[in-house]
Amino acid sequence: MSDFTIQNVIIPQTDGYTTTDVQIVDDKITAIAPHLDIIGRLVNGENQLLLPGFVNAHTHSSEMWLRGLIPPFPLELWLAELYAFPLLTPEQVYLSALGTAGETLLSGGTTVVDHLVLIPNQELDTVAAAVRGYKEIGIRAFIAPLIQDLPLSMGIPAAGTSQTHKPFFRSTDETLEFMATVIQQFHDPESGIHIAVAPTGPQLCTDALFTGCMELSDKYNLCRHSHLLETKVQQKLAQERYGCSAVEYLQNLGYLSDRTSLAHCVWLSDKDITILAQTQSTVVHNPLSNLRLGSGIAPVLKYRQAGVNVAFACDGASSNDSQDLLEAIKIGSILHNVTDFDYRHWITPRQGVEMASIGGAKGLNMADEVGSLEVGKKADLVMYNLKNLSLLPRTDPIGLLVLGRPGNVVSNAWVNGKQIVADGEIVTIDVRELQQELFNQSQWSIKHQSQFTKDMEGHYRFVMDLPK
Amino acid sequence: MSDFTIQNVIIPQTDGYTTTDVQIVDDKITAIAPHLDIIGRLVNGENQLLLPGFVNAHTHSSEMWLRGLIPPFPLELWLAELYAFPLLTPEQVYLSALGTAGETLLSGGTTVVDHLVLIPNQELDTVAAAVRGYKEIGIRAFIAPLIQDLPLSMGIPAAGTSQTHKPFFRSTDETLEFMATVIQQFHDPESGIHIAVAPTGPQLCTDALFTGCMELSDKYNLCRHSHLLETKVQQKLAQERYGCSAVEYLQNLGYLSDRTSLAHCVWLSDKDITILAQTQSTVVHNPLSNLRLGSGIAPVLKYRQAGVNVAFACDGASSNDSQDLLEAIKIGSILHNVTDFDYRHWITPRQGVEMASIGGAKGLNMADEVGSLEVGKKADLVMYNLKNLSLLPRTDPIGLLVLGRPGNVVSNAWVNGKQIVADGEIVTIDVRELQQELFNQSQWSIKHQSQFTKDMEGHYRFVMDLPK
Repeated sequence: MSDFTIQNVIIPQTDGYTTTDVQIVDDKITAIAPHLDIIGRLVNGENQLLLPGFVNAHTHSSEMWLRGLIPPFPLELWLAELYAFPLLTPEQVYLSALGTAGETLLSGGTTVVDHLVLIPNQELDTVAAAVRGYKEIGIRAFIAPLIQDLPLSMGIPAAGTSQTHKPFFRSTDETLEFMATVIQQFHDPESGIHIAVAPTGPQLCTDALFTGCMELSDKYNLCRHSHLLETKVQQKLAQERYGCSAVEYLQNLGYLSDRTSLAHCVWLSDKDITILAQTQSTVVHNPLSNLRLGSGIAPVLKYRQAGVNVAFACDGASSNDSQDLLEAIKIGSILHNVTDFDYRHWITPRQGVEMASIGGAKGLNMADEVGSLEVGKKADLVMYNLKNLSLLPRTDPIGLLVLGRPGNVVSNAWVNGKQIVADGEIVTIDVRELQQELFNQSQWSIKHQSQFTKDMEGHYRFVMDLPK
Repeated sequence: MSDFTIQNVIIPQTDGYTTTDVQIVDDKITAIAPHLDIIGRLVNGENQLLLPGFVNAHTHSSEMWLRGLIPPFPLELWLAELYAFPLLTPEQVYLSALGTAGETLLSGGTTVVDHLVLIPNQELDTVAAAVRGYKEIGIRAFIAPLIQDLPLSMGIPAAGTSQTHKPFFRSTDETLEFMATVIQQFHDPESGIHIAVAPTGPQLCTDALFTGCMELSDKYNLCRHSHLLETKVQQKLAQERYGCSAVEYLQNLGYLSDRTSLAHCVWLSDKDITILAQTQSTVVHNPLSNLRLGSGIAPVLKYRQAGVNVAFACDGASSNDSQDLLEAIKIGSILHNVTDFDYRHWITPRQGVEMASIGGAKGLNMADEVGSLEVGKKADLVMYNLKNLSLLPRTDPIGLLVLGRPGNVVSNAWVNGKQIVADGEIVTIDVRELQQELFNQSQWSIKHQSQFTKDMEGHYRFVMDLPK
């Protein structure tokens, strides 16, 4: 019933572009060739570019409620600010899932990985709210509940000082039981909702939590996700706690695999990079939050040279503070030019698009199903209006899309063959109602530094050798 | 006749925001206070943020014709590609001036500095075409014809090799005569068109050209502009040619002053920075092109600490490849967080806005006239719709504007009291016609490497110690 044929659309070829037709039956691409018979609805592709949908490979959807608000702080102090804000409601989590998915879709994404911050004591309701949002809007979603079993203060090394820590409020066993329930209740790839296991990172998780997650991942064939070496502090902490790098630690635990994706990866050694390549792990590059939080520039050109798969992501909207994938692809492509004088290593716009599509798919163990324009693959497709002023004058379509600053260029988007965006508008939800709700449930505010941040700041500055 | 009063608009105050009225009579702000009498037309400012217009302090408008097209190359090879393209017509220069001004206006800019690439043998027509565009759309424009008197190949050091160069096709005297004519014919600040003197940079200009420009600048009270130490190659070249840094060279010539603005400034020493501070010169920061061309990260935090004024710019649209000032402000604000672990030095969103507005005005010797919301200043104003989905939920308006990725948020813009943007649309020109012309006069193309670049590449790689 929802079959369609896109006529005369521009698609990339190895050495340029061609204008062709693309046929979609049910959820799959069934033909790509000029002059196809029209099956189902006709979609006019004239002066439009068709690309596989991108993957927003790491975000925290509910951070949307605080975007624009947290002052310039490094991750550890930024986190202290983040957790000082009043708790959200499940309804707000639903709304920010819609907002996150919407911005992702309107910037070329058809899949989102939501490392979902849980509302304490409403953990299951949090996941249910996000699932509801993603199902309604129709994006392909990997929901990775953000779990930890150590308190935030343990994310900073002691550095020779004596530090005391309160235990985390939820035990490791309770957390793993929660994850088992989430998987049984919500993991449903056929409907476009995948659950992933995702301890927040070695700095705030025990071996037992990682091991328990690996067992769940093996039992249910789930993707594994985690933050990894985002900051210099985390690099120092790993040495202090394990006497080795966090990559070696995860390798020893057995957490690294071809369905493991690791957000940030800023502070890795050459040896660490070799380990990621050998284990076929995926690096998820969050260029904007790495700048915003001053984390550093991830050695992405080295990853590519070592054969490590790299995907792009926006990260949560209070460390970016947007969910625009085209922005992440642009900055993630050009940022590394300042790390290597040899321009032969630089990322081309086409390579940027590939990292965002097939690179993202690989990281989610879905490279056989999505991530490229191929007959037999699922129809996760995005069409860009090349007559949009921000993409004119006409030159190289992908060059304009990646290196420009496109606005309102997504004309159509389909996920699993279902149309989500038509004529530039999201058609599965009422966007005006969403807009009104986001407005109603918020207020203009200037957040001042939290007491919690002030408490941590002295020790943070000591650890980072900063003047008092 | 065009007087107006903005009612209930949000404006920033020292420690937050206030909702107020703003009255504009003729070209000036005449009152800022709550509950003003309505003079002239009433503009509803509810849920809108009013800011002074930003300055796009360095661009090359006609590069818009090649945006998205030039492959990832460092400046010197990128320039060789740029100059290998067929010449534009004055009509195209007019269209790209409109396009550049349009994107600048719709991202918060009310002034543009166009370091205008001249069509050989049609130099005066080139300037006339840009002047026509800027007058029509109504943006405040500083047109700085891009002049040089040495050939492109001299932009790379000999580095001990023997290099031969063809003389530049136009002599120093002819160029200075041309500049005198341009000034007499087009310099008209009252009408919003300023001419600036702008030798492209020490690497391609003789002492005589700089000195001649200084004389014109003094005679007519014109701003001075130039590229400065954009690349490591330029740093090496200055040492080879002058035996000192390019900053010391310009200081010795007397080119540096409080109405001198210098684009890029990536490769400066601490001593150079002190000279910029002492001479009250302005650094124009082009973060996106510095990344795109792999030029490096300008030491902007050091400039700020040394008291050097810093403004923001987009640079030409084939090295960015956009003219969105909000993008330049965002990246130019957060990029430097990775250069200094001490977050107390990081640029806040408010500081970013100040750099883009009053910082830009200072660099153009107009700080008394524009660049802030003050009674008596010219009404170069931009109003942002805070109900736009990309600025929701409500948090800190300036935080959202700078750290987010706003789209279509400029609801109204005025230059010199004249309305240029109303209800999100440019009202002074027919944007659809512009769009159609940009479409008609271009075609989809993939540019391959030019012969010129191939010729230069070997020597470039030798100079930069890159493998053959």
